[in-house]
Amino acid sequence: MLLRSVLRVHCHTNRLYPQFRSNSRAFSSRYGRRTSYKRTQVLYPAGVAASLTAAGVLAVKSEPKSSSNSSSKEGGGEVGGVTGGLTAGEWKDGLPLYSFDEVKKHDSSENGVWVIYNKGVYDITGFISKHPGGELLLVGAGRAIDPYWKIYSVHHSPETHALLESMRIGNYDTSSTPEEEKGEDDGELDNQWSNEPQSRHPALLCNQEKPFNAEPPPAILTGDFHTPNDLFYVRNHLPVPPRVDPKEYRLEIAKETGIGEGVEPIELSLEEIKAFPVTSISAVVQCGGNRRHSMASYKPVRGLSWKGGAIGNARWTGVRLCDVLKHVGVSGGNYGGIKHVQFEGLDADAMGSCYSASIPIETAMDPNRDVLLVFQMNGEDIPIDHGYPLRVIVPGAVGARSVKWVSRIVLSTEESPSIWQRRDYKLFPSNVDINNVDYESSEAMQDMPVQSAICLPIPGSTVDISSGFVTLRGYAWSGGGRSISRVDVSINGGKDWSVAKLHSNESQKPNRVWAWSLWEATVPVSACTGQLDIVCKAMDSSCNTQPENVESIWNFRGLANNAWHRVSVKTANNI
Amino acid sequence: MLLRSVLRVHCHTNRLYPQFRSNSRAFSSRYGRRTSYKRTQVLYPAGVAASLTAAGVLAVKSEPKSSSNSSSKEGGGEVGGVTGGLTAGEWKDGLPLYSFDEVKKHDSSENGVWVIYNKGVYDITGFISKHPGGELLLVGAGRAIDPYWKIYSVHHSPETHALLESMRIGNYDTSSTPEEEKGEDDGELDNQWSNEPQSRHPALLCNQEKPFNAEPPPAILTGDFHTPNDLFYVRNHLPVPPRVDPKEYRLEIAKETGIGEGVEPIELSLEEIKAFPVTSISAVVQCGGNRRHSMASYKPVRGLSWKGGAIGNARWTGVRLCDVLKHVGVSGGNYGGIKHVQFEGLDADAMGSCYSASIPIETAMDPNRDVLLVFQMNGEDIPIDHGYPLRVIVPGAVGARSVKWVSRIVLSTEESPSIWQRRDYKLFPSNVDINNVDYESSEAMQDMPVQSAICLPIPGSTVDISSGFVTLRGYAWSGGGRSISRVDVSINGGKDWSVAKLHSNESQKPNRVWAWSLWEATVPVSACTGQLDIVCKAMDSSCNTQPENVESIWNFRGLANNAWHRVSVKTANNI
Repeated sequence: MLLRSVLRVHCHTNRLYPQFRSNSRAFSSRYGRRTSYKRTQVLYPAGVAASLTAAGVLAVKSEPKSSSNSSSKEGGGEVGGVTGGLTAGEWKDGLPLYSFDEVKKHDSSENGVWVIYNKGVYDITGFISKHPGGELLLVGAGRAIDPYWKIYSVHHSPETHALLESMRIGNYDTSSTPEEEKGEDDGELDNQWSNEPQSRHPALLCNQEKPFNAEPPPAILTGDFHTPNDLFYVRNHLPVPPRVDPKEYRLEIAKETGIGEGVEPIELSLEEIKAFPVTSISAVVQCGGNRRHSMASYKPVRGLSWKGGAIGNARWTGVRLCDVLKHVGVSGGNYGGIKHVQFEGLDADAMGSCYSASIPIETAMDPNRDVLLVFQMNGEDIPIDHGYPLRVIVPGAVGARSVKWVSRIVLSTEESPSIWQRRDYKLFPSNVDINNVDYESSEAMQDMPVQSAICLPIPGSTVDISSGFVTLRGYAWSGGGRSISRVDVSINGGKDWSVAKLHSNESQKPNRVWAWSLWEATVPVSACTGQLDIVCKAMDSSCNTQPENVESIWNFRGLANNAWHRVSVKTANNI
Repeated sequence: MLLRSVLRVHCHTNRLYPQFRSNSRAFSSRYGRRTSYKRTQVLYPAGVAASLTAAGVLAVKSEPKSSSNSSSKEGGGEVGGVTGGLTAGEWKDGLPLYSFDEVKKHDSSENGVWVIYNKGVYDITGFISKHPGGELLLVGAGRAIDPYWKIYSVHHSPETHALLESMRIGNYDTSSTPEEEKGEDDGELDNQWSNEPQSRHPALLCNQEKPFNAEPPPAILTGDFHTPNDLFYVRNHLPVPPRVDPKEYRLEIAKETGIGEGVEPIELSLEEIKAFPVTSISAVVQCGGNRRHSMASYKPVRGLSWKGGAIGNARWTGVRLCDVLKHVGVSGGNYGGIKHVQFEGLDADAMGSCYSASIPIETAMDPNRDVLLVFQMNGEDIPIDHGYPLRVIVPGAVGARSVKWVSRIVLSTEESPSIWQRRDYKLFPSNVDINNVDYESSEAMQDMPVQSAICLPIPGSTVDISSGFVTLRGYAWSGGGRSISRVDVSINGGKDWSVAKLHSNESQKPNRVWAWSLWEATVPVSACTGQLDIVCKAMDSSCNTQPENVESIWNFRGLANNAWHRVSVKTANNI
């Protein structure tokens, strides 16, 4: 049944990107799935190419040396290594040896789903419903998943390699790979990264190269109420799309059939968009995984190890989404049956599946929620890493909803079908992990909770306390338009508390406080204190507070970590 | 300077309440402050009646037996006793004896502020800025505060008696009280309670008789999605006002001069109000002090000891405040300079000071905030205890903003000047108490945080676990329109957790979820478990969670306690 279902990835034909289409076609041709690539709707019925050839288990035998072209130590050579822990796909003596044709028989739920990774063969039938990437995994059914792991390099964590290896059933006879399944080189796959910015700020700490994910050191965040564009964290889920000619850019607004009576699908040029009333707001964008690093200190989590810099506050200039949607005819008490507004980005994987996320129509249409289509960031055209020429800003919500490079808006009865809406960015109880998760059991994250973090002093540093005081600095913010009421700080692990001073560089309207509060506290220190255990915790205007420990909010994806932030430093006199 | 300031208590002349006016005049005459009472504006320049008579310290002497008419053990007789702890106002050997005339000299900040309580004399000069009731305290400057403590019976706690006694400077010579200062009997003061409902539901657990404050046992709350009217908690700050003839009722809408251009002050009859579009919403009203009882387990707090039943969910029928305000001319981006909407109730103390609170104009005018002027509760006329004939409902906010018996709305640049806006219902850090509080340093509570509580089993009860399971029930809710995403429960103190089932009896719109979620969990229990340490914690749609312990959120007023709720029970087989 799973195999009969279809990945409804709505990505539209776009005449603007010959480069992208060329990439896609190259990929399709290489991996033999489709003879032509069309972005309109990408279907992945997993059994589509199932012209099976019978082949049995060859034998249980030693590694066929001739087909080995990578060192075990390097963790699979071209398919990408993993630092620390187990590396999947290495040859394992004593396991049955399978040929390509035998593996290929297992490409459906009826026949079981097997995959090849380097020299390993795996039965992943029971894992399909747990896969964070959803049924996208079925494109690899009965064949090698190495190319997909190259695209989705998030797989290269010790946990994922161990998880794959737990499903190991045999070794793969690499000599049995048919010619048409072999990639001649990686040039075509590498092409998809050709649009990455030539230079990025050297201070950014890179969490992942491809797709690019990097954060500034938290210490520099308190320098400016508006985070400079080139120091703003970058969270890309896919390759950066080709830079669009602003004259050629079109935003398509579409709707599902049968809903939104009176709504006229439309294409808007950038100039037409800028003709709506232009507004500017200061708003935070924060990654759902910000501070994931410290959640992992309790129990391992899955995802990029953001340290606390995956947040920034910018001045966004654009037009109100509600004005644009009203213009195309969205109105009325129930919005003509429209329930969700899906945003699609120009960023797509080599198979044509684009980034997509959605928000409820009520959020989109509420003028007090200030959802914007943004073309300027801090007074400049949005940099390519942040969504040039147009991105969505959903203030108060998790960053994943503020879709970059937005090129299509779909008015729908359903949430975006993307994995970033339906699987990622969901919180589960502490007893749930990737092995027993039911993704349907939890709602997609929208608004974020109250948050605060210490940016200075730097963890592990030595601070001069000869003045008898130590100065602490950081940020605090809450989602949903809530302001920060108070930030409490402690330098002795939470035994005694002081109230930090909040810097409000800009007055924001009640219930629409989208910007952060930078804070500062100068706390007396005894000269004989050798170490400071600094803690901060904030309360928002809805009296919500941060939990004391990560244990109580731990979730296997490491999302929404807003536990008290703790930093330890040494002290010295007259450094 | 304090004495020159004025308590700006805006209460309006109301021709509807001869009974109340009679009470007020009686009180005024008795306590000799004003010859006529006018509700339009009650001014309390504390030195107003200061025709001082010189009189010195009489002597340090033993208790003058003749003037004693109360037993020390009873804690001051007519002035109200206190259970446990110190009782203020008892005779203390060895202290100076003061006459009425000597005390009376100290009725201003220039001369210091002394007061009499029973047989004690107190110098409260340094306490005025800390008094939770604000400068209202100055009405008692230089005289006896016994009558005021009779009105504000909240003073009769061990902490307040001890606090007063800490300011003790002498004994009072009761024989020196002038005739005009003596109350002949308590009948006049008692009259103010003559409008209390004749009967209230016997299941209500009374926290305070006058004013009436009572909650249902939490165990009965999970029986109905809509809490029955007669079991809905009652939180009265003042005596219940006389029942209004609905034909005579008028809602006055006024504005400060100089703001709200185009706004026409108006009086609306009940029929005129009902002519606006009528709407119904299910919404929780929760007292800011709900669950205060368990916050006190960490450190004493000031306020009524609500156990967890000071919350209810009802179906409220009325008209949108924003429609009414638009009708009188409120409009525009900045609402003509209007910043706050003040609500005044018909309930007033014997001095004419009415209950009042305010909300930001942005909340009032936002149609998605659903602020209502309500005339029906669960399909019936609002009961007198809940605000007949008209009350405000500010869904998602602390109950104190949902002003009952509303009779006047003031459009203002300022928050309500009432103590319930400016002093009560504010959260302070854990190192602040009544002795060092700066009320201006914190914002008035508006929206409330995520909350949940266990209603069944009852704390301390014995539960039958012969089935191998125990069933837990409770409520969960969050302020600001946020829904409940999940309730986690544990029966072993938080070691293992299960997810409760949420009952959603009614679908509410995204971002406008005002009703609670009742929840239920059936958890397996080992037969050899002797005690269950039940815990619950909820997460809302903004990923906010409840703090694990009250320590981290303790505040001296015991407000907004949303720490994990804990209940311990014994187990038995086949009870």
